[in-house]
Amino acid sequence: MTPPTPIVRLAELQIDPTQRETYLALLREEIEESIRLEPGVLTLNAVALKEAPDQIRLMEIYADQTAYEAHLKSPHFTRYKDATAGMVASLTLRETVPIVLRSQR
Amino acid sequence: MTPPTPIVRLAELQIDPTQRETYLALLREEIEESIRLEPGVLTLNAVALKEAPDQIRLMEIYADQTAYEAHLKSPHFTRYKDATAGMVASLTLRETVPIVLRSQR
Repeated sequence: MTPPTPIVRLAELQIDPTQRETYLALLREEIEESIRLEPGVLTLNAVALKEAPDQIRLMEIYADQTAYEAHLKSPHFTRYKDATAGMVASLTLRETVPIVLRSQR
Repeated sequence: MTPPTPIVRLAELQIDPTQRETYLALLREEIEESIRLEPGVLTLNAVALKEAPDQIRLMEIYADQTAYEAHLKSPHFTRYKDATAGMVASLTLRETVPIVLRSQR
């Protein structure tokens, strides 16, 4: 039996520049809690573009569909979504097909 | 002393659809060799967009600037660049500022 293919999602966000620091604090908290509380949330990497610091890019890796759906319903994620709703000027979510995912162990 | 901030680079590639499978094989090989041979190459994650399978997205994490520059000069990376030059219709590299990078241990 081969292991399930992880789910990788990309998110592209434009943040209201006047609320950027508040947004980043809430994002950091949400990511730390997700990794700590949800073993099926394998990776959450967030960066800002150097050329446009209000543009945030996320790569999210979940163990499988069940882990992904559980994350969307988690208290820390729903709290983050509610708290940041007025700070996000645009959000594009891109579903992907993983090609190869490798990190040092 | 705080540890050095890793370097995170995003790459957006459009691949010639007639050469996609060959390109993906070369990309897989390059990633496997980079992770195996270069301890400073921390993560190389490659995905295709579901909505546009010829669109490849990479998130690359290097331990520091030295590791990043060494990777660009490595034999496996230069071989990959040469071999795939005619397969890549467009390439956009985006420098980033890491916000938070977390994975399960």
